[in-house]
Amino acid sequence: MGDVKLHGSWASAFNSRVIWALKFKGIPFEYIEEDLSNKSPQLVQYNPIHKKIPILVHDGKPICESMTIVEYIDDFWPENPLLPSDPHERALARFWVKFADQKGDSIWSIFLTNGEEREKAIKDNMEIFKIVEDQCLGEKKFFGGDNINIVDIAFGGFAHWLGVIEEIVGLNLLEENFPALHAWTKNFKEVPVIKENLPDRDKMLVFFKGRREAILGSSA
Amino acid sequence: MGDVKLHGSWASAFNSRVIWALKFKGIPFEYIEEDLSNKSPQLVQYNPIHKKIPILVHDGKPICESMTIVEYIDDFWPENPLLPSDPHERALARFWVKFADQKGDSIWSIFLTNGEEREKAIKDNMEIFKIVEDQCLGEKKFFGGDNINIVDIAFGGFAHWLGVIEEIVGLNLLEENFPALHAWTKNFKEVPVIKENLPDRDKMLVFFKGRREAILGSSA
Repeated sequence: MGDVKLHGSWASAFNSRVIWALKFKGIPFEYIEEDLSNKSPQLVQYNPIHKKIPILVHDGKPICESMTIVEYIDDFWPENPLLPSDPHERALARFWVKFADQKGDSIWSIFLTNGEEREKAIKDNMEIFKIVEDQCLGEKKFFGGDNINIVDIAFGGFAHWLGVIEEIVGLNLLEENFPALHAWTKNFKEVPVIKENLPDRDKMLVFFKGRREAILGSSA
Repeated sequence: MGDVKLHGSWASAFNSRVIWALKFKGIPFEYIEEDLSNKSPQLVQYNPIHKKIPILVHDGKPICESMTIVEYIDDFWPENPLLPSDPHERALARFWVKFADQKGDSIWSIFLTNGEEREKAIKDNMEIFKIVEDQCLGEKKFFGGDNINIVDIAFGGFAHWLGVIEEIVGLNLLEENFPALHAWTKNFKEVPVIKENLPDRDKMLVFFKGRREAILGSSA
Protein backbone atom coordinates (compact mmCIF):
# COMPACT_ATOMS: atom_id res chain seq x y z
CA MET A 1 0.00 0.00 0.00
CA GLY A 2 2.72 2.44 1.03
CA ASP A 3 2.39 5.95 2.39
CA VAL A 4 -0.37 7.90 0.62
CA LYS A 5 -0.90 11.64 1.10
CA LEU A 6 -3.28 13.94 -0.73
CA HIS A 7 -2.72 17.70 -0.89
CA GLY A 8 -6.07 19.26 -1.71
CA SER A 9 -8.60 21.99 -1.18
CA TRP A 10 -12.00 21.11 0.27
CA ALA A 11 -14.23 22.95 -2.24
CA SER A 12 -12.48 21.76 -5.42
CA ALA A 13 -14.22 19.27 -7.73
CA PHE A 14 -10.77 18.21 -8.98
CA ASN A 15 -9.84 17.34 -5.41
CA SER A 16 -13.02 15.32 -4.92
CA ARG A 17 -12.24 13.24 -8.03
CA VAL A 18 -9.11 11.94 -6.29
CA ILE A 19 -10.83 11.40 -2.93
CA TRP A 20 -13.58 9.37 -4.65
CA ALA A 21 -11.04 7.20 -6.48
CA LEU A 22 -9.07 6.52 -3.29
CA LYS A 23 -12.23 5.73 -1.30
CA PHE A 24 -13.57 3.58 -4.16
CA LYS A 25 -10.41 1.49 -3.96
CA GLY A 26 -10.37 1.49 -0.16
CA ILE A 27 -6.93 3.10 0.06
CA PRO A 28 -6.22 4.80 3.42
CA PHE A 29 -4.59 8.21 2.99
CA GLU A 30 -3.60 11.31 4.89
CA TYR A 31 -5.38 14.45 3.68
CA ILE A 32 -3.55 17.78 3.78
CA GLU A 33 -5.77 20.85 3.27
CA GLU A 34 -3.91 23.54 1.31
CA ASP A 35 -4.59 27.27 1.66
CA LEU A 36 -4.65 28.27 -2.01
CA SER A 37 -4.14 31.94 -1.16
CA ASN A 38 -0.91 30.96 0.60
CA LYS A 39 0.41 27.81 -1.05
CA SER A 40 2.71 25.60 1.00
CA PRO A 41 6.35 25.06 -0.05
CA GLN A 42 5.47 21.37 -0.53
CA LEU A 43 2.71 22.20 -3.04
CA VAL A 44 5.10 24.33 -5.11
CA GLN A 45 7.86 21.72 -4.80
CA TYR A 46 5.60 18.83 -5.83
CA ASN A 47 3.87 20.66 -8.71
CA PRO A 48 6.35 23.31 -9.92
CA ILE A 49 4.73 23.46 -13.39
CA HIS A 50 1.13 24.27 -12.49
CA LYS A 51 1.35 24.92 -8.72
CA LYS A 52 -2.14 23.43 -8.37
CA ILE A 53 -3.94 20.90 -6.22
CA PRO A 54 -4.74 18.02 -6.13
CA ILE A 55 -1.36 16.35 -5.66
CA LEU A 56 -1.07 12.72 -4.62
CA VAL A 57 2.18 11.82 -2.90
CA HIS A 58 2.75 8.08 -2.85
CA ASP A 59 5.87 6.90 -0.97
CA GLY A 60 7.32 10.38 -1.45
CA LYS A 61 6.66 10.51 -5.21
CA PRO A 62 4.24 13.25 -6.35
CA ILE A 63 1.61 12.85 -9.08
CA CYS A 64 -0.30 15.87 -10.42
CA GLU A 65 -3.43 16.56 -12.53
CA SER A 66 -6.62 15.05 -11.11
CA MET A 67 -7.48 12.57 -13.88
CA THR A 68 -3.85 11.52 -14.25
CA ILE A 69 -3.93 10.76 -10.52
CA VAL A 70 -7.16 8.76 -10.92
CA GLU A 71 -5.55 6.70 -13.72
CA TYR A 72 -2.49 6.18 -11.49
CA ILE A 73 -4.70 4.93 -8.67
CA ASP A 74 -6.37 2.51 -11.11
CA ASP A 75 -2.94 1.36 -12.42
CA PHE A 76 -1.41 0.84 -8.98
CA TRP A 77 -4.45 -0.70 -7.25
CA PRO A 78 -6.19 -2.61 -10.06
CA GLU A 79 -8.96 -4.22 -7.95
CA ASN A 80 -12.40 -2.61 -8.50
CA PRO A 81 -11.29 -1.19 -11.86
CA LEU A 82 -12.30 2.35 -12.79
CA LEU A 83 -11.38 1.95 -16.47
CA PRO A 84 -13.08 -0.68 -18.66
CA SER A 85 -10.90 -3.70 -19.51
CA ASP A 86 -11.75 -3.78 -23.24
CA PRO A 87 -9.29 -1.54 -25.16
CA HIS A 88 -11.99 0.11 -27.28
CA GLU A 89 -14.15 0.81 -24.23
CA ARG A 90 -11.05 2.17 -22.47
CA ALA A 91 -10.41 4.51 -25.40
CA LEU A 92 -14.02 5.75 -25.34
CA ALA A 93 -13.74 6.35 -21.59
CA ARG A 94 -10.50 8.32 -22.11
CA PHE A 95 -12.16 10.34 -24.89
CA TRP A 96 -14.91 11.43 -22.47
CA VAL A 97 -12.48 12.05 -19.61
CA LYS A 98 -10.63 14.41 -21.94
CA PHE A 99 -13.93 16.04 -22.95
CA ALA A 100 -14.82 16.51 -19.27
CA ASP A 101 -11.43 18.10 -18.64
CA GLN A 102 -11.74 20.40 -21.66
CA LYS A 103 -15.38 21.44 -21.25
CA GLY A 104 -16.62 20.52 -17.78
CA ASP A 105 -15.05 23.54 -16.10
CA SER A 106 -17.09 25.90 -18.26
CA ILE A 107 -19.95 25.67 -15.72
CA TRP A 108 -18.02 28.37 -13.84
CA SER A 109 -18.56 30.75 -16.77
CA ILE A 110 -22.26 30.88 -15.79
CA PHE A 111 -21.23 31.76 -12.26
CA LEU A 112 -18.65 34.45 -12.98
CA THR A 113 -20.59 36.51 -15.54
CA ASN A 114 -23.62 38.76 -15.77
CA GLY A 115 -25.94 40.04 -18.49
CA GLU A 116 -25.09 39.17 -22.09
CA GLU A 117 -21.97 37.30 -21.10
CA ARG A 118 -24.10 35.12 -18.83
CA GLU A 119 -26.57 34.43 -21.65
CA LYS A 120 -23.67 33.33 -23.88
CA ALA A 121 -22.27 31.15 -21.07
CA ILE A 122 -25.67 29.49 -20.54
CA LYS A 123 -25.99 28.77 -24.27
CA ASP A 124 -22.47 27.27 -24.44
CA ASN A 125 -23.11 25.10 -21.40
CA MET A 126 -26.46 23.90 -22.72
CA GLU A 127 -24.65 22.67 -25.86
CA ILE A 128 -22.14 20.82 -23.67
CA PHE A 129 -24.88 19.26 -21.52
CA LYS A 130 -26.72 18.14 -24.67
CA ILE A 131 -23.62 16.41 -26.06
CA VAL A 132 -22.93 14.70 -22.74
CA GLU A 133 -26.54 13.58 -22.28
CA ASP A 134 -27.13 12.40 -25.86
CA GLN A 135 -23.73 11.04 -26.88
CA CYS A 136 -22.20 9.83 -23.64
CA LEU A 137 -24.89 9.03 -21.05
CA GLY A 138 -27.73 7.91 -23.31
CA GLU A 139 -30.13 5.63 -21.43
CA LYS A 140 -27.56 4.29 -18.98
CA LYS A 141 -27.89 4.79 -15.22
CA PHE A 142 -24.22 5.80 -14.93
CA PHE A 143 -21.68 6.85 -17.56
CA GLY A 144 -20.00 3.53 -16.71
CA GLY A 145 -23.26 1.58 -17.27
CA ASP A 146 -24.78 -0.18 -14.24
CA ASN A 147 -21.93 1.06 -12.03
CA ILE A 148 -19.84 4.21 -11.89
CA ASN A 149 -16.48 4.30 -13.65
CA ILE A 150 -13.78 6.87 -14.44
CA VAL A 151 -16.17 8.89 -16.66
CA ASP A 152 -18.63 9.37 -13.78
CA ILE A 153 -15.74 10.61 -11.66
CA ALA A 154 -14.63 12.98 -14.42
CA PHE A 155 -18.12 14.52 -14.71
CA GLY A 156 -18.54 14.78 -10.92
CA GLY A 157 -18.62 18.59 -11.14
CA PHE A 158 -22.01 18.39 -12.89
CA ALA A 159 -23.42 16.36 -9.99
CA HIS A 160 -22.69 18.63 -7.03
CA TRP A 161 -20.94 21.89 -7.98
CA LEU A 162 -23.35 22.75 -10.82
CA GLY A 163 -26.29 22.55 -8.40
CA VAL A 164 -24.59 25.03 -6.06
CA ILE A 165 -23.89 27.37 -8.98
CA GLU A 166 -27.52 27.07 -10.16
CA GLU A 167 -28.84 27.91 -6.69
CA ILE A 168 -26.59 30.96 -6.34
CA VAL A 169 -27.44 32.42 -9.76
CA GLY A 170 -31.12 31.30 -9.68
CA LEU A 171 -31.20 28.83 -12.56
CA ASN A 172 -32.37 25.25 -12.98
CA LEU A 173 -30.73 24.27 -16.27
CA LEU A 174 -30.29 20.54 -15.82
CA GLU A 175 -33.64 19.71 -14.20
CA GLU A 176 -35.62 21.72 -16.78
CA ASN A 177 -33.78 20.64 -19.91
CA PHE A 178 -31.78 17.45 -19.43
CA PRO A 179 -33.83 14.86 -17.54
CA ALA A 180 -31.39 11.98 -18.05
CA LEU A 181 -28.38 14.02 -16.93
CA HIS A 182 -30.39 15.36 -13.99
CA ALA A 183 -31.35 11.79 -13.00
CA TRP A 184 -27.67 10.83 -13.23
CA THR A 185 -26.69 13.57 -10.74
CA LYS A 186 -29.10 11.99 -8.23
CA ASN A 187 -27.98 8.41 -8.96
CA PHE A 188 -24.32 9.41 -8.71
CA LYS A 189 -24.77 11.15 -5.37
CA GLU A 190 -26.56 8.09 -3.98
CA VAL A 191 -23.53 5.84 -4.53
CA PRO A 192 -22.20 5.45 -0.93
CA VAL A 193 -18.57 6.24 -1.77
CA ILE A 194 -19.68 9.51 -3.44
CA LYS A 195 -22.44 10.42 -0.95
CA GLU A 196 -20.04 10.09 1.99
CA ASN A 197 -17.36 12.16 0.29
CA LEU A 198 -19.01 15.34 -0.99
CA PRO A 199 -18.06 18.76 0.33
CA ASP A 200 -20.78 20.21 2.56
CA ARG A 201 -23.36 22.03 0.43
CA ASP A 202 -24.13 24.82 2.92
CA LYS A 203 -20.44 25.54 3.39
CA MET A 204 -20.01 25.58 -0.41
CA LEU A 205 -22.89 28.07 -0.81
CA VAL A 206 -21.26 30.49 1.63
CA PHE A 207 -17.81 30.02 0.14
CA PHE A 208 -18.78 30.37 -3.53
CA LYS A 209 -21.17 33.30 -2.89
CA GLY A 210 -18.27 35.10 -1.24
CA ARG A 211 -15.93 34.31 -4.10
CA ARG A 212 -18.44 35.49 -6.67
CA GLU A 213 -18.99 38.80 -4.87
CA ALA A 214 -15.24 39.32 -4.59
CA ILE A 215 -14.83 38.78 -8.34
CA LEU A 216 -17.96 40.47 -9.73
CA GLY A 217 -18.37 43.13 -7.05
CA SER A 218 -21.66 44.23 -5.50
CA SER A 219 -23.56 43.74 -8.79
CA ALA A 220 -23.37 39.96 -8.27
CA MET B 1 -4.69 -7.58 -36.07
CA GLY B 2 -8.03 -6.78 -37.71
CA ASP B 3 -8.91 -4.11 -40.22
CA VAL B 4 -7.17 -0.81 -39.41
CA LYS B 5 -7.98 2.45 -41.18
CA LEU B 6 -6.71 5.94 -40.42
CA HIS B 7 -8.59 9.04 -41.53
CA GLY B 8 -6.08 11.88 -41.54
CA SER B 9 -4.69 14.99 -43.15
CA TRP B 10 -1.10 14.93 -44.40
CA ALA B 11 0.14 18.20 -42.86
CA SER B 12 -1.27 17.63 -39.35
CA ALA B 13 1.10 16.91 -36.46
CA PHE B 14 -1.81 15.18 -34.69
CA ASN B 15 -2.14 12.85 -37.65
CA SER B 16 1.58 12.08 -37.62
CA ARG B 17 1.39 11.06 -33.95
CA VAL B 18 -0.94 8.22 -34.91
CA ILE B 19 1.07 7.21 -38.00
CA TRP B 20 4.26 7.03 -35.88
CA ALA B 21 2.55 4.87 -33.23
CA LEU B 22 1.17 2.46 -35.86
CA LYS B 23 4.52 2.23 -37.67
CA PHE B 24 6.36 1.86 -34.34
CA LYS B 25 4.18 -1.18 -33.58
CA GLY B 26 4.42 -2.52 -37.14
CA ILE B 27 0.63 -2.42 -37.68
CA PRO B 28 -0.42 -2.37 -41.35
CA PHE B 29 -3.20 0.15 -42.02
CA GLU B 30 -5.11 1.83 -44.79
CA TYR B 31 -4.66 5.60 -44.86
CA ILE B 32 -7.55 7.81 -45.99
CA GLU B 33 -6.62 11.43 -46.71
CA GLU B 34 -9.44 13.79 -45.68
CA ASP B 35 -10.13 17.13 -47.34
CA LEU B 36 -10.67 19.29 -44.26
CA SER B 37 -12.42 21.99 -46.30
CA ASN B 38 -14.96 19.39 -47.38
CA LYS B 39 -15.17 16.75 -44.65
CA SER B 40 -16.37 13.29 -45.66
CA PRO B 41 -19.63 11.88 -44.24
CA GLN B 42 -17.51 9.16 -42.59
CA LEU B 43 -15.41 11.74 -40.71
CA VAL B 44 -18.53 13.44 -39.34
CA GLN B 45 -20.15 10.07 -38.55
CA TYR B 46 -17.06 8.75 -36.74
CA ASN B 47 -16.31 11.95 -34.80
CA PRO B 48 -19.64 13.78 -34.42
CA ILE B 49 -18.44 15.68 -31.33
CA HIS B 50 -15.32 17.38 -32.68
CA LYS B 51 -15.48 16.56 -36.43
CA LYS B 52 -11.69 16.39 -36.46
CA ILE B 53 -8.97 14.08 -37.74
CA PRO B 54 -7.18 11.87 -36.89
CA ILE B 55 -9.69 9.04 -36.52
CA LEU B 56 -8.58 5.43 -36.22
CA VAL B 57 -11.17 2.88 -37.30
CA HIS B 58 -10.36 -0.59 -36.00
CA ASP B 59 -12.71 -3.35 -37.15
CA GLY B 60 -15.34 -0.71 -37.82
CA LYS B 61 -15.02 0.94 -34.39
CA PRO B 62 -13.83 4.57 -34.42
CA ILE B 63 -11.42 6.12 -31.90
CA CYS B 64 -10.82 9.88 -31.84
CA GLU B 65 -8.29 12.32 -30.29
CA SER B 66 -4.69 11.68 -31.31
CA MET B 67 -3.18 10.80 -27.93
CA THR B 68 -6.20 8.71 -26.96
CA ILE B 69 -5.62 6.79 -30.21
CA VAL B 70 -1.92 6.37 -29.36
CA GLU B 71 -2.85 4.96 -25.92
CA TYR B 72 -5.37 2.65 -27.61
CA ILE B 73 -2.67 1.38 -29.97
CA ASP B 74 -0.42 0.73 -26.97
CA ASP B 75 -3.26 -1.04 -25.12
CA PHE B 76 -4.28 -3.23 -28.06
CA TRP B 77 -0.78 -4.09 -29.35
CA PRO B 78 1.34 -4.14 -26.17
CA GLU B 79 4.64 -5.28 -27.79
CA ASN B 80 7.21 -2.44 -28.06
CA PRO B 81 5.44 -0.45 -25.33
CA LEU B 82 5.05 3.30 -25.74
CA LEU B 83 4.09 3.90 -22.10
CA PRO B 84 6.48 2.99 -19.24
CA SER B 85 5.47 -0.12 -17.26
CA ASP B 86 6.05 1.41 -13.80
CA PRO B 87 2.82 3.12 -12.61
CA HIS B 88 4.62 6.24 -11.36
CA GLU B 89 6.57 6.58 -14.62
CA ARG B 90 3.31 6.06 -16.53
CA ALA B 91 1.67 8.86 -14.55
CA LEU B 92 4.60 11.20 -15.26
CA ALA B 93 4.37 10.33 -18.98
CA ARG B 94 0.62 11.05 -18.95
CA PHE B 95 1.26 14.36 -17.15
CA TRP B 96 3.58 15.46 -19.99
CA VAL B 97 1.28 14.13 -22.71
CA LYS B 98 -1.44 16.33 -21.22
CA PHE B 99 0.97 19.26 -21.06
CA ALA B 100 1.88 18.72 -24.74
CA ASP B 101 -1.82 18.66 -25.64
CA GLN B 102 -2.56 21.81 -23.64
CA LYS B 103 0.49 23.88 -24.62
CA GLY B 104 2.21 22.34 -27.63
CA ASP B 105 -0.23 23.80 -30.13
CA SER B 106 0.67 27.33 -29.08
CA ILE B 107 3.58 27.27 -31.57
CA TRP B 108 0.94 28.28 -34.14
CA SER B 109 0.40 31.55 -32.26
CA ILE B 110 3.87 32.65 -33.46
CA PHE B 111 2.82 31.84 -36.99
CA LEU B 112 -0.59 33.48 -37.08
CA THR B 113 0.29 36.84 -35.52
CA ASN B 114 2.32 39.97 -36.30
CA GLY B 115 3.83 42.85 -34.34
CA GLU B 116 3.11 43.04 -30.62
CA GLU B 117 0.92 39.95 -30.69
CA ARG B 118 3.85 38.03 -32.21
CA GLU B 119 6.20 39.30 -29.47
CA LYS B 120 3.75 38.08 -26.83
CA ALA B 121 3.42 34.72 -28.61
CA ILE B 122 7.21 34.32 -28.75
CA LYS B 123 7.52 35.10 -25.04
CA ASP B 124 4.78 32.61 -24.13
CA ASN B 125 6.35 29.89 -26.27
CA MET B 126 9.83 30.50 -24.83
CA GLU B 127 8.35 29.88 -21.36
CA ILE B 128 6.84 26.62 -22.59
CA PHE B 129 10.10 25.50 -24.24
CA LYS B 130 11.99 26.28 -21.04
CA ILE B 131 9.66 24.16 -18.93
CA VAL B 132 9.85 21.26 -21.41
CA GLU B 133 13.64 21.43 -21.68
CA ASP B 134 14.37 21.87 -17.98
CA GLN B 135 11.63 19.82 -16.32
CA CYS B 136 10.86 17.10 -18.82
CA LEU B 137 13.81 16.48 -21.15
CA GLY B 138 16.74 17.30 -18.85
CA GLU B 139 19.89 15.54 -19.97
CA LYS B 140 18.16 12.61 -21.63
CA LYS B 141 18.51 11.86 -25.34
CA PHE B 142 14.76 11.31 -25.73
CA PHE B 143 11.86 12.21 -23.46
CA GLY B 144 11.55 8.44 -23.01
CA GLY B 145 15.25 8.10 -22.03
CA ASP B 146 17.48 6.09 -24.34
CA ASN B 147 14.53 5.38 -26.64
CA ILE B 148 11.46 7.31 -27.71
CA ASN B 149 8.18 6.80 -25.88
CA ILE B 150 4.70 8.32 -25.85
CA VAL B 151 6.04 11.70 -24.63
CA ASP B 152 8.34 12.01 -27.66
CA ILE B 153 5.36 11.31 -29.89
CA ALA B 154 3.28 13.91 -28.04
CA PHE B 155 5.97 16.61 -28.53
CA GLY B 156 6.52 15.67 -32.20
CA GLY B 157 5.21 19.06 -33.33
CA PHE B 158 8.32 20.71 -31.84
CA ALA B 159 10.56 18.47 -33.95
CA HIS B 160 9.24 19.15 -37.44
CA TRP B 161 6.38 21.68 -37.56
CA LEU B 162 8.12 24.26 -35.37
CA GLY B 163 11.10 24.31 -37.77
CA VAL B 164 8.78 25.05 -40.70
CA ILE B 165 7.08 27.84 -38.72
CA GLU B 166 10.48 29.28 -37.77
CA GLU B 167 11.64 29.29 -41.39
CA ILE B 168 8.48 31.01 -42.61
CA VAL B 169 8.53 33.76 -39.97
CA GLY B 170 12.34 34.08 -39.91
CA LEU B 171 13.12 32.97 -36.37
CA ASN B 172 15.45 30.43 -34.82
CA LEU B 173 14.08 30.12 -31.30
CA LEU B 174 15.05 26.58 -30.40
CA GLU B 175 18.57 26.51 -31.85
CA GLU B 176 19.53 29.85 -30.27
CA ASN B 177 18.00 29.34 -26.84
CA PHE B 178 17.31 25.70 -26.06
CA PRO B 179 20.28 23.53 -27.06
CA ALA B 180 19.01 20.33 -25.42
CA LEU B 181 15.56 20.62 -26.97
CA HIS B 182 17.12 21.48 -30.33
CA ALA B 183 19.37 18.40 -30.09
CA TRP B 184 16.28 16.34 -29.30
CA THR B 185 14.54 17.49 -32.50
CA LYS B 186 17.51 16.10 -34.45
CA ASN B 187 17.72 12.86 -32.47
CA PHE B 188 13.98 12.32 -32.80
CA LYS B 189 13.99 12.83 -36.56
CA GLU B 190 16.84 10.35 -36.93
CA VAL B 191 14.79 7.50 -35.43
CA PRO B 192 13.93 5.44 -38.56
CA VAL B 193 10.21 5.12 -37.83
CA ILE B 194 9.97 8.91 -37.46
CA LYS B 195 12.36 9.84 -40.30
CA GLU B 196 10.45 7.68 -42.77
CA ASN B 197 7.09 9.10 -41.70
CA LEU B 198 7.42 12.88 -41.72
CA PRO B 199 5.37 15.05 -44.05
CA ASP B 200 7.53 16.51 -46.84
CA ARG B 201 9.15 19.75 -45.64
CA ASP B 202 9.01 21.61 -49.00
CA LYS B 203 5.37 20.74 -49.44
CA MET B 204 4.70 21.93 -45.86
CA LEU B 205 6.45 25.26 -46.55
CA VAL B 206 4.23 25.93 -49.56
CA PHE B 207 1.08 24.79 -47.75
CA PHE B 208 1.61 26.72 -44.51
CA LYS B 209 2.81 29.90 -46.28
CA GLY B 210 -0.42 29.82 -48.25
CA ARG B 211 -2.50 29.30 -45.13
CA ARG B 212 -0.75 32.12 -43.33
CA GLU B 213 -1.34 34.57 -46.18
CA ALA B 214 -5.00 33.56 -46.36
CA ILE B 215 -5.40 34.26 -42.63
CA LEU B 216 -3.19 37.31 -42.13
CA GLY B 217 -3.60 38.85 -45.59
CA SER B 218 -0.81 40.45 -47.60
CA SER B 219 0.90 41.82 -44.47
CA ALA B 220 2.11 38.30 -43.68
